[in-house]
Amino acid sequence: MIYITRRERFNAAHRLFKPDFTDDQNLKLFGKCSNPNWHGHNYDLHVTIKGEVNPETGFLVNLSSLSSIIRKQVIDKLDHRNINLDVDFMQGKYASTEMLAISIWEQLEPEVKKLGALLHRIRVQESENNYVEFFG
Amino acid sequence: MIYITRRERFNAAHRLFKPDFTDDQNLKLFGKCSNPNWHGHNYDLHVTIKGEVNPETGFLVNLSSLSSIIRKQVIDKLDHRNINLDVDFMQGKYASTEMLAISIWEQLEPEVKKLGALLHRIRVQESENNYVEFFG
Amino acid sequence: MIYITRRERFNAAHRLFKPDFTDDQNLKLFGKCSNPNWHGHNYDLHVTIKGEVNPETGFLVNLSSLSSIIRKQVIDKLDHRNINLDVDFMQGKYASTEMLAISIWEQLEPEVKKLGALLHRIRVQESENNYVEFFG
Amino acid sequence: MIYITRRERFNAAHRLFKPDFTDDQNLKLFGKCSNPNWHGHNYDLHVTIKGEVNPETGFLVNLSSLSSIIRKQVIDKLDHRNINLDVDFMQGKYASTEMLAISIWEQLEPEVKKLGALLHRIRVQESENNYVEFFG
Amino acid sequence: MIYITRRERFNAAHRLFKPDFTDDQNLKLFGKCSNPNWHGHNYDLHVTIKGEVNPETGFLVNLSSLSSIIRKQVIDKLDHRNINLDVDFMQGKYASTEMLAISIWEQLEPEVKKLGALLHRIRVQESENNYVEFFG
Amino acid sequence: MIYITRRERFNAAHRLFKPDFTDDQNLKLFGKCSNPNWHGHNYDLHVTIKGEVNPETGFLVNLSSLSSIIRKQVIDKLDHRNINLDVDFMQGKYASTEMLAISIWEQLEPEVKKLGALLHRIRVQESENNYVEFFG
Repeated sequence: MIYITRRERFNAAHRLFKPDFTDDQNLKLFGKCSNPNWHGHNYDLHVTIKGEVNPETGFLVNLSSLSSIIRKQVIDKLDHRNINLDVDFMQGKYASTEMLAISIWEQLEPEVKKLGALLHRIRVQESENNYVEFFG
Repeated sequence: MIYITRRERFNAAHRLFKPDFTDDQNLKLFGKCSNPNWHGHNYDLHVTIKGEVNPETGFLVNLSSLSSIIRKQVIDKLDHRNINLDVDFMQGKYASTEMLAISIWEQLEPEVKKLGALLHRIRVQESENNYVEFFG
Repeated sequence: MIYITRRERFNAAHRLFKPDFTDDQNLKLFGKCSNPNWHGHNYDLHVTIKGEVNPETGFLVNLSSLSSIIRKQVIDKLDHRNINLDVDFMQGKYASTEMLAISIWEQLEPEVKKLGALLHRIRVQESENNYVEFFG
Repeated sequence: MIYITRRERFNAAHRLFKPDFTDDQNLKLFGKCSNPNWHGHNYDLHVTIKGEVNPETGFLVNLSSLSSIIRKQVIDKLDHRNINLDVDFMQGKYASTEMLAISIWEQLEPEVKKLGALLHRIRVQESENNYVEFFG
Repeated sequence: MIYITRRERFNAAHRLFKPDFTDDQNLKLFGKCSNPNWHGHNYDLHVTIKGEVNPETGFLVNLSSLSSIIRKQVIDKLDHRNINLDVDFMQGKYASTEMLAISIWEQLEPEVKKLGALLHRIRVQESENNYVEFFG
Repeated sequence: MIYITRRERFNAAHRLFKPDFTDDQNLKLFGKCSNPNWHGHNYDLHVTIKGEVNPETGFLVNLSSLSSIIRKQVIDKLDHRNINLDVDFMQGKYASTEMLAISIWEQLEPEVKKLGALLHRIRVQESENNYVEFFG
């Protein structure tokens, strides 16, 4: 069993808030992340897949196929977007790093299977000091 | 003459657009950076000052004083904010990295002088692939 | 189950040595790390916790609460200190990266539990070439 | 149980290709990585070992011993070399990151055991966007 | 006057050698960089241009135009190539980082002028420990 | 004229203090950097030299010669040492980053000249947030 990780990046705006809270209540719960006019990040996404090395090619999957899937399912929808407003697979969810990681897993898990590998881990890094990992 | 650089960081949302353009016109000129619902970045700010080493202390300026000035004049106004909507010193300007660098220079230049040093360079890094420098 | 990692940093002096060894014996066993006049590092600390996403907030724990705990229990005691001489929870122990990781685990494990999560991993990075991980 | 990771680096040329394929067939399967005149990378190698902390020394193994083993068994053979042509332990194999990770494991696993520890993970990073991990 | 830097990357093989030297003579002069079977690097290219901010757009040049020029004139010719054998603008030159920086300057200087800016600096980073800068 | 930068690293302990001050007075002036029991850093040293490319070799100087000089004149004296107590060229000086940069310049300037190049810049990075540059 071998594990391969591909990094992709996206830059997006977001806001943490409960829709039924006032701005003051949201400020108390989410701090400066609740700013009503949004803020944003350069997100690093690490997608780790696993499987057997193909003896005919020496690789697990073609990395450019993996990259294409990540771009189509995830990056094209998130990059230079507002996570709360613009992203179909984030509708009705908190735009937290935790929910991003879980939702990106759901976007990629069936597609990775079609490549002949298994999704192992989604890692979303929001800043140099914080990242979230989800293993399904 | 010695040069000291202090790095600070801020996370902000922004949008590149001309107010008298339609969304389509802005999209043509600014690309995906014109998304009407905003996007965002983790910005790295490098502030370089210059001057003589103080023989009584062995340093140019006290770095925590420099850091306080940067935080008060720049970071507290930009961090977790919308550059177009929330930042007093960016009103009526494009929220480009170029205009950020020039405007941050204006915010810091007189304050650095009060510390007994000269502002030498403002560097604003918007992503791992792009940064802007302004020398006054 | 979701995993969140918070990075904090501390700068400290230390020395590797056995108190009942001569300087020459320590030099032979620990190399240049045994310098009697100390040396030091910029340490990177990565604290990984795990648990369920809170459906009321979209996050596992409030990251600023986690950061506060790490600062109070660990960083304030280690930063700009001598690990051998100044740090209560390192008394009577080797000031190795291994012992740091284990001791930081002990400092944080009960506090993370009070936040409603579980400590998963302590990672202490001493240089760009070496790091230690402890999982309890 | 404690885990220690040592990073070493090597710069090497390689090519991905099937010897019984034409250049065009290889181009179709391996893309630009099949360039007949080779290309190359700065590889980062992370070697993670595990074991108990030695109560007599406060460390798992002497890191300079670990570094020596990695240099002798792996780096000296790969650094500033052509992976396909110059490296004894890569003969008859694809010069992929996957096969590198598996082959480096085989080079190091018995040597780490002699140090009194167990090899836990080999991680080979080919670029800032891709890395492979092998756990035996 | 404002300065903007764009980073691009390329992975390439090369060899340092004098064609009229024996392998032993080249080994003595260039060390392991003279390996006859080539070695390679992940190169980081930083292109810095300068000029006035366009008051109609808030930027110096459109960064995607700059990126396109760099890719067409430089990256497409170097990436996944052998610098000595495959690159038209390196023919008859040493494949050193110094000569790469000078040659990339020549490739880009007239094209940047067409964009309405001036080329200020080419920086080529061969490894985390070495880089070369050329200012024309 | 071409510029080449070589990075080397050293890990050292130090303390900022005036010998004729009490600990309290030093604490007031230098903050936590005055801890009487020392603290320490992983220092990054960037040495930039300049000159003409040698048409016989394609390089400015042999980088391994430059690295040897830096190691002999600077790194071997600073690495795993106490800057205040152990380093001959820092005696009687403040162990500040500013004084380090100036003193390292003095150590290297004549030696670089012997290599046939000119020293252009010393950059000493004390942490990811601070660095000092000296140009002679």
